[in-house]
Amino acid sequence: MTERTTLDMLGRRDATPLAAALTVLRDSLANAAPPADEEIELAAALERYLAADLYAPQDLPNHPRSVMDGYAVRAADTYGASSQLPAYLKVSGEVRMGEMPTGAPAVGECFRIATGGLLPAGCDAVVMLEHTVAGTGGLLEVVKPVAAGGNVIACGDDVRVRELLLPAGHRLRPCDLGLLAGLGLARLTVYRRPLVGIISTGDEIVPPEQTPPPGKIRDMNMQTIAALVTEQGGQAQRLGIVGDDEPAFSRLLEQALAQCDLVLFSGGSSVGVGDLGERVLKRLTEPGILLHGVAIKPGKPVIIARHGRVPVFGLPGHPVSAAAAYALFVRPTLELLAGHHQPAWHPRPAGRAILERSLNSAAGRTDLIPVMISEARDTPDQPPTVAGDDCLPRATPVLGKSSALSTLVRARAWIMIAAHQQGLAAGSPVDYYLI
Amino acid sequence: MTERTTLDMLGRRDATPLAAALTVLRDSLANAAPPADEEIELAAALERYLAADLYAPQDLPNHPRSVMDGYAVRAADTYGASSQLPAYLKVSGEVRMGEMPTGAPAVGECFRIATGGLLPAGCDAVVMLEHTVAGTGGLLEVVKPVAAGGNVIACGDDVRVRELLLPAGHRLRPCDLGLLAGLGLARLTVYRRPLVGIISTGDEIVPPEQTPPPGKIRDMNMQTIAALVTEQGGQAQRLGIVGDDEPAFSRLLEQALAQCDLVLFSGGSSVGVGDLGERVLKRLTEPGILLHGVAIKPGKPVIIARHGRVPVFGLPGHPVSAAAAYALFVRPTLELLAGHHQPAWHPRPAGRAILERSLNSAAGRTDLIPVMISEARDTPDQPPTVAGDDCLPRATPVLGKSSALSTLVRARAWIMIAAHQQGLAAGSPVDYYLI
Repeated sequence: MTERTTLDMLGRRDATPLAAALTVLRDSLANAAPPADEEIELAAALERYLAADLYAPQDLPNHPRSVMDGYAVRAADTYGASSQLPAYLKVSGEVRMGEMPTGAPAVGECFRIATGGLLPAGCDAVVMLEHTVAGTGGLLEVVKPVAAGGNVIACGDDVRVRELLLPAGHRLRPCDLGLLAGLGLARLTVYRRPLVGIISTGDEIVPPEQTPPPGKIRDMNMQTIAALVTEQGGQAQRLGIVGDDEPAFSRLLEQALAQCDLVLFSGGSSVGVGDLGERVLKRLTEPGILLHGVAIKPGKPVIIARHGRVPVFGLPGHPVSAAAAYALFVRPTLELLAGHHQPAWHPRPAGRAILERSLNSAAGRTDLIPVMISEARDTPDQPPTVAGDDCLPRATPVLGKSSALSTLVRARAWIMIAAHQQGLAAGSPVDYYLI
Repeated sequence: MTERTTLDMLGRRDATPLAAALTVLRDSLANAAPPADEEIELAAALERYLAADLYAPQDLPNHPRSVMDGYAVRAADTYGASSQLPAYLKVSGEVRMGEMPTGAPAVGECFRIATGGLLPAGCDAVVMLEHTVAGTGGLLEVVKPVAAGGNVIACGDDVRVRELLLPAGHRLRPCDLGLLAGLGLARLTVYRRPLVGIISTGDEIVPPEQTPPPGKIRDMNMQTIAALVTEQGGQAQRLGIVGDDEPAFSRLLEQALAQCDLVLFSGGSSVGVGDLGERVLKRLTEPGILLHGVAIKPGKPVIIARHGRVPVFGLPGHPVSAAAAYALFVRPTLELLAGHHQPAWHPRPAGRAILERSLNSAAGRTDLIPVMISEARDTPDQPPTVAGDDCLPRATPVLGKSSALSTLVRARAWIMIAAHQQGLAAGSPVDYYLI
């Protein structure tokens, strides 16, 4: 066997640059099936993705309300009022909380009102309690004028009927659920959680609950990948471990392709078995392998494939490499399948830090380096609101082999060295991405 | 009633500065009971907090392994090798995956080995396949030397036996679980999820599933707060709505104090009822109210109290104010009760952006302003790794009343104007905090 064919067999051909690989992936997902949807209770909808645009069924509020404790007035009755020359109003009633006001103050009169109280007819503003002095004989001194609409939330000020509240593809946050509760939207149509089949391969791998016999090690990738999937809102289906055994792997992969929305396997690329993953994918998937090998470190031997509408990723066997390939390729794919309409094709930085030491990188290759992040200073009420680089936390690289998962565990984030860079100098500000 | 006593009754006394309020809260929690713990399966431990330091029960790996496909060698046999003058080694065997090597290469010999294969006795390095040329007659040309230890992960290189893996108080991430799986740690002792009792108060509030009669509105705070608690890993216990009814509120609060690790109520502070929350807390809690009113906007009327070991927060009734008070006070408290040993007393920024318009703020008061964040440019493999302010996203304030929850829904983050600042100029870089 010549060197060339050996390397071909191992997928060691020229690796695709990251940007090109992401373009291939993105294009291949352009016609991905919209995920199926389901109807669920509002209270269970946190972090789910809306499957349809949501419109307001009513105005909110549907009656003008006070947003302050004070007195409901005609604003004109307070014009020109000051401490020197207060306006005098007669307190002729009170708005009871949770009830429609009974009657209404006449000109020159006002009603006592609490926050949330409904504005009585004829009134157009609320004078804050702080701007009044209770006088004698039911008379109120108003020492500051209020404009029409002042301290009042008008009908539809929060939400107007038929307004678009949230678009399809939006991931629901706590405040979103609160607003929907306020509008009585008790059930929501959301995308179903994608089912993600996960397979670990390798003759040397045993399940974590077993004591590995000599020569074997416990599976780490299954647990890491399943947790990454769960964190993103997918349903992880642990399909188990297969050895470097082509019929067994083929059976498990076929089952996964038939059942799942996304299939991930790790390992399956070793000199002993040629390249099990590539061979089986070539046979079982259509259109098949999109690319094998990306110019990233770690994570280079990743395989990206598709079978019908199901994306398939062959992740490297080394745990750190598998995590890096997941972060770059699987994360946006799962985000799309989960229902996000505009997944982040570049990971969203979690912050910026100052690099503690210089790092080299080969040109044309994108490097991911695990880093520790020093805690930013924690001084309440002195947030680094307007701040230069001097108050950024420090990023300290955790160097180690990509087979040593402890390098990721010791780190808090990745930093990236782009393909066009040949390294980063100590002292550079760098964006970091949570692990 | 004089103005002074009315204002006192309403908690409108001078508000405590945010930094001082956080110090009071932090001090009051210094002797908080460590949360109870429980033992759970590794697979269910994502995002839980470790209740005890975790040490490695074994070396990982426990035998030196290859991290590359290639040939297991004695490094010394390759010294001085080059393309011009290769070292010639006899391929005298192969390491089978998942098995102990049988035999060992003699001096001048090598064994074929795959990634993950166990290093045979006598070998101290692996020559990468890429640095070899298969010759004739079982002879291998090595064209580049390898150092001792090269392409090998030694015994304990990933994790050393008895090493501290993760400290108590650590929140478990996917890669952590992977490493623990690799060490066979199938069950973990984690802190129990804190039980958080939530009460909504106000005569005007009805449950979301009801159509509000005239004068009433649906409860938004319960849903928002319960989801915030869930998101943080707490168990939200929805205790329901009480009107401005002192005996009913007292009964519900007593029940909450007896059962829960943390109690939150919203509303309960209106001119109609005096200040229900303050009155009931004074009567039912010991040591009682720590402070009432903080110099923040929105969120000023917050009450912070403690009953025995149970923190109690009276959140404002306005939904945006409640969310702001939650973000500043409840979030770190719940983080502490959930088991984090060093909660972030200042929220962790999610990123930095350029403020689109100038904002004013009163000196001495901390302002939280909801903002939209423009998407940062999304060019794969051109991460803003080393970047100035010119490539930051834009923060556009969403202005609106604190009673209008839609202002938060339209926004993606908060920005803060610190007490010592009187505003922020358009074009300033600002840290933002996810809503």
